[in-house]
Amino acid sequence: MKPIYLDYAAATPVDKRVIDAMMPFFADNFYNPSALYQGAREAKNALETARAVVSSTIGARPSEVIFTAGGTESANLAINGILNANPDCELIISAIEHDAVLKSAQNHNYKTAPVSEKGLIDLQKLEELISDKTVLISVMYANNEVGTVQPIRDIASMIEKVRKTRKVKSVKTPLLLHTDACQAPQYLDINTARLGVDLMTLNGGKIYGPKQSGILYCKAGVVIKPQIVGGGQENGFRSGTENVPACVGFAKALELSQRNKTTLNRDVLALAKYFAGELETRFDAVINGHPKLKLPNNVHATFAGSDNERMLFSLDSQAVYASIGSACSASSDEPSHVLKAMGKSVIDARSSLRFSLGRETTKAEIERVLKALEIAIIA
Amino acid sequence: MKPIYLDYAAATPVDKRVIDAMMPFFADNFYNPSALYQGAREAKNALETARAVVSSTIGARPSEVIFTAGGTESANLAINGILNANPDCELIISAIEHDAVLKSAQNHNYKTAPVSEKGLIDLQKLEELISDKTVLISVMYANNEVGTVQPIRDIASMIEKVRKTRKVKSVKTPLLLHTDACQAPQYLDINTARLGVDLMTLNGGKIYGPKQSGILYCKAGVVIKPQIVGGGQENGFRSGTENVPACVGFAKALELSQRNKTTLNRDVLALAKYFAGELETRFDAVINGHPKLKLPNNVHATFAGSDNERMLFSLDSQAVYASIGSACSASSDEPSHVLKAMGKSVIDARSSLRFSLGRETTKAEIERVLKALEIAIIA
Repeated sequence: MKPIYLDYAAATPVDKRVIDAMMPFFADNFYNPSALYQGAREAKNALETARAVVSSTIGARPSEVIFTAGGTESANLAINGILNANPDCELIISAIEHDAVLKSAQNHNYKTAPVSEKGLIDLQKLEELISDKTVLISVMYANNEVGTVQPIRDIASMIEKVRKTRKVKSVKTPLLLHTDACQAPQYLDINTARLGVDLMTLNGGKIYGPKQSGILYCKAGVVIKPQIVGGGQENGFRSGTENVPACVGFAKALELSQRNKTTLNRDVLALAKYFAGELETRFDAVINGHPKLKLPNNVHATFAGSDNERMLFSLDSQAVYASIGSACSASSDEPSHVLKAMGKSVIDARSSLRFSLGRETTKAEIERVLKALEIAIIA
Repeated sequence: MKPIYLDYAAATPVDKRVIDAMMPFFADNFYNPSALYQGAREAKNALETARAVVSSTIGARPSEVIFTAGGTESANLAINGILNANPDCELIISAIEHDAVLKSAQNHNYKTAPVSEKGLIDLQKLEELISDKTVLISVMYANNEVGTVQPIRDIASMIEKVRKTRKVKSVKTPLLLHTDACQAPQYLDINTARLGVDLMTLNGGKIYGPKQSGILYCKAGVVIKPQIVGGGQENGFRSGTENVPACVGFAKALELSQRNKTTLNRDVLALAKYFAGELETRFDAVINGHPKLKLPNNVHATFAGSDNERMLFSLDSQAVYASIGSACSASSDEPSHVLKAMGKSVIDARSSLRFSLGRETTKAEIERVLKALEIAIIA
C-alpha cells in the first residue's frame, strides 16, 4: 500500500525538475567554481545564475544571497552572525521559534516575546522588550508546528519607528529583523522588500528542493560575522567549496514554489478546511493555531484523551504518515516549547497531532486518513 | 576537445556508483530521518548504515562519526569545538594548514609550528611550542598544495609523551590531535587508531563523492562544543535535518577510495614521477614538496621566469586544466602562506603550478600536457 504522506512540513520529496537541474553538476561539470579554467567558469556561472534566480524571487540583490547548507545553518548564521558582530548587544526572539533559532539565541543575551493562545506574537509586548541594546529581533514567518503566520510587515514597521527614535537619541546600535521563513515560500509572500526584513532564512528541504540547501538573505550594509571560515567563498560569509548542484537545485525549487501559488493555496486550503472540519465533527478534535493567519496546509489537532504517539504508530501501521509536530520532543515528557508558549497543557500536547498537506495531497487520501483515524483513536 | 583534468586536488567528479547510491534518497525515500513512521525509519537506517561504513573504514565507532556539510565545516568544528569547550586554552597549528583551519585558528589563541623547505613539520619545534595551556594541535595529513605528508603517528606519540608528563604534574587540560585528512583517503592510511588522532576531517568532494559532504571523526570522550545548533541531530554535535543522500554518497565514495589502493598508488606515482622528470628535463622545472613523503598524485613545479597565471590561461586555451595551487590567492600579490612557510620567494611562488593527477589520468594525457606546456611557457 502506497503510504499517504501528511508530513510535508518535515520534509518534501525532491521535485523531478529539481533533480534534472542538479544532475549535470555531479559527474559532468563537477569543477571547483574558484578554479581558473573554462569548466570552472561554467560551474561558477551556474552558481551565479542560481543566485540571480533566488535574488529576483525574493526581491533582493544577488550579493545579498548567501548560500548555506540549509535552514538550520542559515538561522544560526543570522543569530550568531549579528550577535558576534555586536557582542555587547541583546536579541529578542518569539516564544515559538524553531530550535535552530532558540538554541542559537541561548548562546547570547536574549529575551523572549510571548505569543497568544493562537500562537500570534503580541506586538505591544514585543515593542516593550526592546532596549537600546537590542540589535536583533527574530520572529518566525510561519510556525512549523501550528502554522500560525506572524505579521512580519507590522513588526518591520514598528522596528522602523524605533530606529527613528534611536536616531534622535543618537543610539548607534542597529536594530535588525530576521525571519525564519522555511515554511513560507509555497504559500506566502517572500519578497524581502515588501516584508521589510533585514535577514531571512530559507530551506530547500521544505520546498521540494535538496536537503541541506538553503540561503540566508542578508541586506546590503548589514554587518555579520561569518561562522564557517576558510577559503572565503560566498563573499567571505560562508566558506567551503560551493555545492553547485545543491545551489542550482535550491534555486529551481524556489522558482517552482512560486508557480501556480494562488491555485495551490486555494486547493490546499479547501482540502485542509474539509479535513479540519471532519476532525471536529467526527472526533471532537480541537484545531490549534490561528483560524485565519495560518499556513493553508497545516492542520494541528488535539484529540482529547488520546495518546498521540500511539495514534501515530497506529496510523503508521495503516500507511498514514503524520507527525506529533516536533520529532525532537517525541521522547520527552515535556510538550514542545511552542505548545507550552500557547498555554497548552502537557496532556493537551500529548494528545495532539500535526498533519501537513502538500501539493500532491488528494481528497481520496484525506478520506482514507479519516478512516485510519477511526481505528487509531480506538487503539 | 575533451579537457585534460589535472586538478583532482581541487575537485573530483562524483563517481557513477556514488550517484546511483544517492539517487533513491532524493524523490523516493526523502523522509525526515527523525520522523516516526516506516519510510522515515528506512531513511534513518540508510543514514546509520552509511555511518557504520564510514566508521569501520576509519577504524572508529559509529558514534564517533559526525556528518557535516564538508571539509571546511568539519575543520571549523574541530577547532571551534575544542577551543570553545576550553576557552582559556591555546592551540598550535602547522604553518601550512588549509585556510579552513588557519582562519578558524585566528579566532582563538594560537601558535604556528614551522615547516622545512620541503614542507615537513619540525617535530622538535612543535614540541617546544606546547605549554600546559595547549589543548589542541592541528596538523594537516597531506598538504593540498605541495602534497607533503606529515608524520601524524610520530606527532601522536610525542603528544602521548606530553600527556604522561601532564598526568605527573596534575595538569588537567587535555592535549588533543586533529588532522585535516581531506586529501588523504585515496592514497594514505586513514585508520584513526593507527594514526593516533583524536579528531580527523574528511571531505567527500575530494574523493569522488558529493560536494559539501564530509565528516568530523571525534574520539569518544573528547568534549566539543557544537557550532550549528537546533534539532540536536548527530548526537547534538551538528543540527539540521540530515542530508541522507549526501551521507550515503560520502560513505560510498569513502568505501570506493579504499579499493585497489595499492595498484592506484603505484600507477599514479609512476605517472607523476614520469611527468615530474619530464618537467625537470624539458623545462628546467624545480619540483616542490618532499621527494618521498608526498601524495603520489601531486606534482608542484616552479618554472623559473614564468608567470603562472599566464601559463594557466594558455593551458586552459589548450584544454588543459591545472591550478596555481590555491585559487584564493590568485588575485593577490602575496604567495600562498604554504609556499611562504616553505621559504619560497614571491617570484618563485608566482611561477609555480600545481598538477594533481586522478585515477583516470593516462600517459597519453600527460604527453599532451607536456606539449601544451611548451606553448604555455613560450607564451
